[in-house]
Amino acid sequence: MSDFDLAEHPHRRYNPLTGEWVLVSPHRAKRPWQGQQEEQSQDTRPEYDPGCYLCPTNTRANGEQNPAYESTYVFDNDFGALQEGTPEGAYVKGDLIRAESERGICRVICFSPRHDLTLADMAPEDIRKVVDLWQQEYQELGSKDFINYVQIFENKGQIMGCSNPHPHGQIWAQRTVPVEPAKETTQQGLYFEQHQRSLLADYLALELETRERVVAENEHFVALVPFWAVWPFETIVISKRHFQHIGQMTEEEKNSFAQSIKALTAAYDRVFGISFPYSSGIHQSPTDGQAYPGWHFHMHFYPPLLRSATVKKFMVGYEMMGNPQRDITPEAAANLLRSLVR
Amino acid sequence: MSDFDLAEHPHRRYNPLTGEWVLVSPHRAKRPWQGQQEEQSQDTRPEYDPGCYLCPTNTRANGEQNPAYESTYVFDNDFGALQEGTPEGAYVKGDLIRAESERGICRVICFSPRHDLTLADMAPEDIRKVVDLWQQEYQELGSKDFINYVQIFENKGQIMGCSNPHPHGQIWAQRTVPVEPAKETTQQGLYFEQHQRSLLADYLALELETRERVVAENEHFVALVPFWAVWPFETIVISKRHFQHIGQMTEEEKNSFAQSIKALTAAYDRVFGISFPYSSGIHQSPTDGQAYPGWHFHMHFYPPLLRSATVKKFMVGYEMMGNPQRDITPEAAANLLRSLVR
Ligand SMILES: O=P(O)(O)O[C@H]1O[C@H](CO)[C@@H](O)[C@H](O)[C@H]1O
Ligand SMILES: O=P(O)(O)O[C@H]1O[C@H](CO)[C@@H](O)[C@H](O)[C@H]1O
Repeated sequence: MSDFDLAEHPHRRYNPLTGEWVLVSPHRAKRPWQGQQEEQSQDTRPEYDPGCYLCPTNTRANGEQNPAYESTYVFDNDFGALQEGTPEGAYVKGDLIRAESERGICRVICFSPRHDLTLADMAPEDIRKVVDLWQQEYQELGSKDFINYVQIFENKGQIMGCSNPHPHGQIWAQRTVPVEPAKETTQQGLYFEQHQRSLLADYLALELETRERVVAENEHFVALVPFWAVWPFETIVISKRHFQHIGQMTEEEKNSFAQSIKALTAAYDRVFGISFPYSSGIHQSPTDGQAYPGWHFHMHFYPPLLRSATVKKFMVGYEMMGNPQRDITPEAAANLLRSLVR
Repeated sequence: MSDFDLAEHPHRRYNPLTGEWVLVSPHRAKRPWQGQQEEQSQDTRPEYDPGCYLCPTNTRANGEQNPAYESTYVFDNDFGALQEGTPEGAYVKGDLIRAESERGICRVICFSPRHDLTLADMAPEDIRKVVDLWQQEYQELGSKDFINYVQIFENKGQIMGCSNPHPHGQIWAQRTVPVEPAKETTQQGLYFEQHQRSLLADYLALELETRERVVAENEHFVALVPFWAVWPFETIVISKRHFQHIGQMTEEEKNSFAQSIKALTAAYDRVFGISFPYSSGIHQSPTDGQAYPGWHFHMHFYPPLLRSATVKKFMVGYEMMGNPQRDITPEAAANLLRSLVR
């Protein structure tokens, strides 16, 4: 009999979505911290900020004026990393020096006209309008012939490189499928071929048996800390029904999804009693016109904080050169988060 | 004829060492920054700090006293993420929930008794002593039968999660090959099978033709910004001779390697006139007793700063969900770094 204990001994966990591993060091949570502390931003923002380029009626850097929008608002990013007019071309020297031009579209989505809110503060009905817009954008962008993948994401908090606290997210849509969704395409495809079932549906069934890592559940979605979570309080929101992309979400599912996001982000804010920073993003099937029967819609949340409002997990030397490493176990994180869901 | 221009248009570049891609958005360097600024630490450290647990003769958290060491000093990490005594075992539920225990050893290496130095300040002869110790540790740790990979790395600067400015690095040695070196094992192995030559030797030859991305060169090593660099001022130090690991480095090569590290880190410090933060690490063949004819010794430097001493590149939403993205081109970064080598 082995004495091996997941809650005590260093171990590796396998991520079936990417095919990669994470190192877990449960005993290490006791390590003292004398390093960098983040500044804790004072959150007393006005409802409307005349200096904010995302608030209604204000003027952006390129001279355009935002409308007096009342729920959500979307526009092309004035400093997009991808551009629609990029000429085709490549630069190649043998096998080892290879570049290809990349066309795409970058958009910004304001979640609310209110400068002082975040998704965690918004009513589910208002988050639902954001979900509607994501659906619409996925369909519109995905239908263009030079767009084969649509990445919807949010950076929340200065620590996540967000330079404006006005609640907003982004969409980067492009010609090729980026590295992370490409890994998930492969892994989900292989699993589907072998089992004729969705990898995430099977995984979700396992999680719902023990509920050890489940954070919140409603009619159509489950939020949980995945067994292979990298970030201390990482979660994944999985649809109960197996569908490929947000374009296929029903009205009911959209309500349920909005509610899940509300429950989860509000729980996050209770972890350290501050507006909890994270990057989040939706992973779904490419828009290249192929069928992806193995793809299962889901949303990732990657929050950086580890032990307090000011001490984050650093993904540095070993993590960059080897693979991600975490201290607290996913089970401990799930316990805490679950206790904070109202 | 295509108008596509690497210095102007968004494009993807291929990393043959990992098989992954990076998105490059050269035009985006003009983007204004209103987000988080890092604190600039004032660097007036004493030669000896009585409160530092790495300085000679001081006592560490576990009660052990450091010797009055005069060059380098190595000890087992008091809060290691890996432990020698971890029992074997696994936790498995079907294909989708899989964990395995992981044995290993974590060590800390002090580069110098002087609290106020960094590798960039040290004389090449003293860096050479660090190289000697890396060689010795790789051989000693690698010869243990439960150690199949030895990761040597350094986190420099608070922004890289380093909690003590005393010049030091770490070694995490373990039973399995971590994700990043595993990718490089696959890619270098495939290339060697196809060409009977080292991937990095062929790449280095291409780079030495144009010297566009070369930063510094000496008798046995070249430091350059790889064509596929992710971090703004990322570099790679490649040995001219094709060998697999530091155990095979000759006396002359060790001197040359120390000199390369000196030249590169000193140039880094001139970029923004501050002690330049980075994570660095050596990638080399596993120590599982197999032959790896394709493996080619090299060292990566991943510095986070982008546009000033206080503004870093954030690898967040798109980067986490899609793939890494960079603004300034590797060629521009190499030009600047090269001009700062003395
Ligand atoms: O080992 P240290 O210096 O205490 O910790 C630092 O380096 C480790 C290895 O890259 C990381 O896991 C930690 O997040 C980081 O803070
Ligand atoms: O687009 P923003 O908010 O200006 O910029 C932020 O998000 C981008 C997408 O994740 C990152 O590339 C930037 O490093 C980050 O600062």
